Amino acid sequence: MKLNCDLGESYGIWALGRDEAVMPYIDMANIACGFHASDPDVMAKTVQSALKHDVLIGAHPGYDDKKGFGRRSISHTHNELKHLVMYQIGAMEGICRLYGGEMAYVKPHGALYNDMMANEAVYRAIIEAISQSNLNIPLMILAQVDNVTYQEIAQQNGVSLLFEAFADRAYDSQGYLVSRQVEGSVYHDEQKIIDQVIQLVEKGTVTTLDGQEIALKADTVCVHGDNDKSIEIIGRLRKSLS
Amino acid sequence: MKLNCDLGESYGIWALGRDEAVMPYIDMANIACGFHASDPDVMAKTVQSALKHDVLIGAHPGYDDKKGFGRRSISHTHNELKHLVMYQIGAMEGICRLYGGEMAYVKPHGALYNDMMANEAVYRAIIEAISQSNLNIPLMILAQVDNVTYQEIAQQNGVSLLFEAFADRAYDSQGYLVSRQVEGSVYHDEQKIIDQVIQLVEKGTVTTLDGQEIALKADTVCVHGDNDKSIEIIGRLRKSLS
Amino acid sequence: MKLNCDLGESYGIWALGRDEAVMPYIDMANIACGFHASDPDVMAKTVQSALKHDVLIGAHPGYDDKKGFGRRSISHTHNELKHLVMYQIGAMEGICRLYGGEMAYVKPHGALYNDMMANEAVYRAIIEAISQSNLNIPLMILAQVDNVTYQEIAQQNGVSLLFEAFADRAYDSQGYLVSRQVEGSVYHDEQKIIDQVIQLVEKGTVTTLDGQEIALKADTVCVHGDNDKSIEIIGRLRKSLS
Amino acid sequence: MKLNCDLGESYGIWALGRDEAVMPYIDMANIACGFHASDPDVMAKTVQSALKHDVLIGAHPGYDDKKGFGRRSISHTHNELKHLVMYQIGAMEGICRLYGGEMAYVKPHGALYNDMMANEAVYRAIIEAISQSNLNIPLMILAQVDNVTYQEIAQQNGVSLLFEAFADRAYDSQGYLVSRQVEGSVYHDEQKIIDQVIQLVEKGTVTTLDGQEIALKADTVCVHGDNDKSIEIIGRLRKSLS
Repeated sequence: MKLNCDLGESYGIWALGRDEAVMPYIDMANIACGFHASDPDVMAKTVQSALKHDVLIGAHPGYDDKKGFGRRSISHTHNELKHLVMYQIGAMEGICRLYGGEMAYVKPHGALYNDMMANEAVYRAIIEAISQSNLNIPLMILAQVDNVTYQEIAQQNGVSLLFEAFADRAYDSQGYLVSRQVEGSVYHDEQKIIDQVIQLVEKGTVTTLDGQEIALKADTVCVHGDNDKSIEIIGRLRKSLS
Repeated sequence: MKLNCDLGESYGIWALGRDEAVMPYIDMANIACGFHASDPDVMAKTVQSALKHDVLIGAHPGYDDKKGFGRRSISHTHNELKHLVMYQIGAMEGICRLYGGEMAYVKPHGALYNDMMANEAVYRAIIEAISQSNLNIPLMILAQVDNVTYQEIAQQNGVSLLFEAFADRAYDSQGYLVSRQVEGSVYHDEQKIIDQVIQLVEKGTVTTLDGQEIALKADTVCVHGDNDKSIEIIGRLRKSLS
Repeated sequence: MKLNCDLGESYGIWALGRDEAVMPYIDMANIACGFHASDPDVMAKTVQSALKHDVLIGAHPGYDDKKGFGRRSISHTHNELKHLVMYQIGAMEGICRLYGGEMAYVKPHGALYNDMMANEAVYRAIIEAISQSNLNIPLMILAQVDNVTYQEIAQQNGVSLLFEAFADRAYDSQGYLVSRQVEGSVYHDEQKIIDQVIQLVEKGTVTTLDGQEIALKADTVCVHGDNDKSIEIIGRLRKSLS
Repeated sequence: MKLNCDLGESYGIWALGRDEAVMPYIDMANIACGFHASDPDVMAKTVQSALKHDVLIGAHPGYDDKKGFGRRSISHTHNELKHLVMYQIGAMEGICRLYGGEMAYVKPHGALYNDMMANEAVYRAIIEAISQSNLNIPLMILAQVDNVTYQEIAQQNGVSLLFEAFADRAYDSQGYLVSRQVEGSVYHDEQKIIDQVIQLVEKGTVTTLDGQEIALKADTVCVHGDNDKSIEIIGRLRKSLS
């Protein structure tokens, strides 16, 4: 079970996240590509850090909206989505080339990620972009109880998938994430977060908010590195997993 | 003698240039990369048009300044220049991949081009970016009487160069372009523009503003496609060269 | 019946619209404020032109999205909408001050305009922004058969309204604009456009797409100045109205 | 002797500065206007905080360069400078209006400030912008031994000036700030910073890096609120001054 984390989200003079503290503990860095966050210099610094710590580099493209940090949905046509994603993936590859790195996967960010999971047309556009560009790297999407449709579309296009679960989010009986609006949807208890990951690894299941145990196949778990506590949790997760 | 032209300089709803009219006549398209002009969709359209017309695709990176169209110099450190250039080159490559195209060369735009020719440190940063990224594509720079220093730096870094002359600009006795401020520096006479190119091809020389004939080795001539007249000139140049 | 037109939609090197040709014929210029289009210099040029031609200056704020020209809806909270609008109105006032002009009204642009008409919360935010800032200038909104709710909210906040009709768009029996997707929704016939305006002036009615005559109270008609034909129509409208 | 501080320099999700901690101790807040930093929502928050703490609101316009935080000089014509400044001042006024505040002064930021002090043409453009707009608020500039030229230009245009000194910077015998490159140019010793301000207040002088005492007339002292230590210093300065 690999740990993935959104990194490289600073911009110009503005620092965000504790990248240096997180990098030693994770396996996969989802690195922002300059549209919802970051810039060429932040990308270069983050790529260099990932290489130093032997962390896989993932392109983390988002909507072109720094003000909203890519968290607001913006309408795009099918082709516009493909261009949006390939521009940012290419830019990440350009920075990687300079430092001898290689992109290992693609994970959309924020509203683009949510739109991809909620709207098959958005998902198809991203899959086609990766396929038609012969990138030969997997796309990371949300692990759900039923992933059949996603897998079929990916297979038809020759794209492989990585499924991610969330360490600190409650699931419902369909295997969907419970909305952040609902009480109890985001875990703040350290042990609960670690237990959810251990259960995913050992049993391939999660326990839903209403107490059922459901199967959830995940290749990786998304962690957050914003503050001291979250970094401590990542450190403990790392230990538990090794 | 190849004809190169800046293209793909539209942005969102704003159209600029007569790309479709120019593309059939040129050999090399310097395609803006989204910083001084263009966006992922304009890039995609321009790349597709270049592929259709069998025109070489050049990445045309500039300073990050749409308001000033990349014509205002902005201070960058050595590493910032490398990141600026590789981000844009990578983005162009991303769009090319999607449509099965390949980047054939790099030509900096506007103030970045001028800074590269006026400031050896800027030139070195761009050369190093191309070299360290193993792009294996040439950099296009201004043909001058004495190109020795530029060639030495390029050779030390294993980067090849393309030299470009200007069809519609007057040269001084050092082989520099006469400033646009000086009367007579920009040719408006169609025949004069065509004659300068023919002379470059047949004799490898230009006649300076004060009447001297000097040697100028050029691989390509830069043409402009802004209006009806300029497109007519490109058409005549094309004919003269074939 | 006043003619209003969106103007000042150029940006940096990119020209859009035929402002100089339109300005002599219109009464009210909806001038972009730098978010969906324009920049401080384009605003200054447009304000000066409006002053020269004795045309009323309207602040024309939009979503912060040049790439999408403000035509894509972007989610904002109530307070964010107020800040979005007041920032742009203030910026317009700053430019007006420099040239001795005065803002006469506010008309939201594109998706912000549509959201205002479709979503009462957006409308309320804009009304409150104008009211709480003591701007003492009217808000321009779409004339509809039933404007009661809009008028009540405006009155409660002490804001006056201007109602605009469209010269070249078909109406349905509710007084809504027929979607651009529907055949016949946009008039291309010059005489039909002029007739619709004359009917609005003389009878206070429009004839709907399915042939009914409905009452529509409008203070102003929106015209477009993109091309030769549309400018000719504006000229004829001007003549018909005087 | 008033304390002024650059505030409101966050942007979107990115926080910068410890505004809430600083606001209780200062007299004047130089609030970023959305070009080099900030956005309409950050401006609104900062204006509200200044009003709550009875702190004067200053418009703090900069070059349009978030990536470089307004610290890189960008070439502008005379009129472009006037538009750049008035757009941002107007935007700040728009936000102030909404919350019942008033702008009290203008202080350019970063490279625009430096260019204003180094280049009379830039200074003139800013003075003219304020004058022609009938803003009736002062411009804050750097206190120097000889301010005659600056004062003459301001008087000719009917603009009043505020002179600011720096608490933590060394001066040379001409009354210029010693370059940050020079050792000893930036004070890190708390007592030294406080002593320089006390000396400015009590004797109207500063002691230069090479030990001379020179006269320097200042209306206000610029302080910084980036970290715990600097905020502690501001607190002590506040106490010493009252």
